Amino acid sequence: MLKCLRCGRTYEGFKIMCECGGVLEYIGEREGSFKGLLREEFLDVRRYLSFLPLKEEFLPKLTLPITPILGRKIEGVNVFFKLEYLMPSGSFKDRGTYVTLAKLKEEGIREVTLDSSGNAALSLALFAKSEGIHAHIFIPKHTSEGKKRLLKLLEAEVHEVEGSRMEVHERARSFREGIYISHWYNPYFIEGTKTTAYEVYEQIGNVDYALVPTGSGTLFLGLYKGFKDLEALEGARIPRMIAVQGRGYESLCKRSKEKSRLAEGIAIPEPPRREQMLKALKESNGACVSVGDEEIAEAIKELISMGLLVEPTSATAYAAFKFLLEEGYFEKGTKVLIPLTGSGLKSV
Amino acid sequence: MLKCLRCGRTYEGFKIMCECGGVLEYIGEREGSFKGLLREEFLDVRRYLSFLPLKEEFLPKLTLPITPILGRKIEGVNVFFKLEYLMPSGSFKDRGTYVTLAKLKEEGIREVTLDSSGNAALSLALFAKSEGIHAHIFIPKHTSEGKKRLLKLLEAEVHEVEGSRMEVHERARSFREGIYISHWYNPYFIEGTKTTAYEVYEQIGNVDYALVPTGSGTLFLGLYKGFKDLEALEGARIPRMIAVQGRGYESLCKRSKEKSRLAEGIAIPEPPRREQMLKALKESNGACVSVGDEEIAEAIKELISMGLLVEPTSATAYAAFKFLLEEGYFEKGTKVLIPLTGSGLKSV
Ligand SMILES: [Zn+2]
Ligand SMILES: [Zn+2]
Repeated sequence: MLKCLRCGRTYEGFKIMCECGGVLEYIGEREGSFKGLLREEFLDVRRYLSFLPLKEEFLPKLTLPITPILGRKIEGVNVFFKLEYLMPSGSFKDRGTYVTLAKLKEEGIREVTLDSSGNAALSLALFAKSEGIHAHIFIPKHTSEGKKRLLKLLEAEVHEVEGSRMEVHERARSFREGIYISHWYNPYFIEGTKTTAYEVYEQIGNVDYALVPTGSGTLFLGLYKGFKDLEALEGARIPRMIAVQGRGYESLCKRSKEKSRLAEGIAIPEPPRREQMLKALKESNGACVSVGDEEIAEAIKELISMGLLVEPTSATAYAAFKFLLEEGYFEKGTKVLIPLTGSGLKSV
Repeated sequence: MLKCLRCGRTYEGFKIMCECGGVLEYIGEREGSFKGLLREEFLDVRRYLSFLPLKEEFLPKLTLPITPILGRKIEGVNVFFKLEYLMPSGSFKDRGTYVTLAKLKEEGIREVTLDSSGNAALSLALFAKSEGIHAHIFIPKHTSEGKKRLLKLLEAEVHEVEGSRMEVHERARSFREGIYISHWYNPYFIEGTKTTAYEVYEQIGNVDYALVPTGSGTLFLGLYKGFKDLEALEGARIPRMIAVQGRGYESLCKRSKEKSRLAEGIAIPEPPRREQMLKALKESNGACVSVGDEEIAEAIKELISMGLLVEPTSATAYAAFKFLLEEGYFEKGTKVLIPLTGSGLKSV
């Protein structure tokens, strides 16, 4: 069941937002223990099928790996990088797309619309093509030729829009041919990203902090929801959720004048799920940190030297970690989770 | 223990080939059942630690995912694509590099040399950088600028050689500064690639055929070795091993006049492990099939439409499958494994 976080109204089936304009959250019931609910016969995302709002017969054929974790001790702090970029389309977005596609198939929806110039578009184009669903992708005209070529290779119907990112968004929302499924709103997307938390728990147990690149908040909210599930089922500890944003695009902390160029993947000044994120920050005793291009550039260099080939937006969380480390924010021995969201191979 | 496949002489430690010029194979003893030997607490490559010739304290920090499998029924045949390209450096080579690096660390080797212009070089550069090992990479001068940039970003010491691939090879072999560790010879590389077979067995049980892109034969021989282990431990069935080669570069079947350009990753006319591969073909009742650029181009288009973003060399095995399917080679209901070796994101 989907429930509006503003007015409390509920819905069944696929719905992107409430009639009142509020965002929706999927509410499910589950009984048993985490271990008991695991589908241990699977070594991929299907391991967590019992936690997902989908029917097994509608699963996308293309499945997702359990992403590995690289542990590094940095100045006495135990840092765990989760390699979320090792996904079929090169980013964590595949988790959200995977669950969304299953739901679309269940509902018999064959034509969809999304606005994005980056990883979400590539992820949707890939899964839609694989499942024979027609995808309209609205992108800014200035999107790189490489990305456009890839979207066309995947036979997405690309609509180029002259104007700002917000104008692209408005054009996609008012488009009438395909159901609008933007991950900014889509509640099923978060059902997919929450699997990251289950994996982390199986791989390294409880963590103390999660530092998450946060624009529209799909990964931030998914992780938080997954950790809350683990708390309910296992008495696991919810980490302090640290939302990491790019300078000039802060939505959860004070807006800087300086504008980050490298954090483009999270440059979303007015995310629809802002209130929900602020609540998660508060409940988890978390914080919002923003980083600038100089710190991001330095962070990406260090990540690459650790063997982590990621794109600049992914490096924001590590940049924030370095900043907080210098501030003395972390006690020695603390466990810090840093998901790395997007592959750097694309920019080679 | 390493054993020469030509003269039978044995060695301990890291050694690339026998004094007699023969290639080496790692020989290990193992007792118990496959299931009993699994390290089930791990959801990454460490799950198979008991089968690997390495000490846990020397494991590379960067670990490898268990790659997912996409199942598709194609004209009555059950095809299983294994997404070997979802690896930290974007190709299956990371499996071989992982075990090699552990062995290098154990032996205290800090400076190595490799000749390659492609995935093996990128894989080594990534893991070497991550472990603080200095890597000399010999490449042909005409290697793409993108690849050169990436190798330099990873701070590998790149040696550009004017001349053919064989000249690059000779220059690297005679280089005296770093230990030569080419995957064409390195017996530990195959110890890494054999983990693919273990994963397949856990994921989908026995398969009837394995179609493998085959140049130097590291994946072909690793898979075969892994399947032989499973036969010994579990009575599992060894699939018929189908070596897929590019036209004009056949080393295991009749050489064509036509030269494939798209199969560049397996364009190795004189692989040092040729005899070993012929033996595997014969023992497994397998075959060698070669494919040309037209078939490869068609195959890659189909793979992408299934959501599989791979590079052209990866598509050779699917091209061979299509050819054999048309010939009526496979019975209905047959299980066919097709590992997809390299990511297509790099060529975007
Ligand atoms: Zn409402
Ligand atoms: Zn010998």
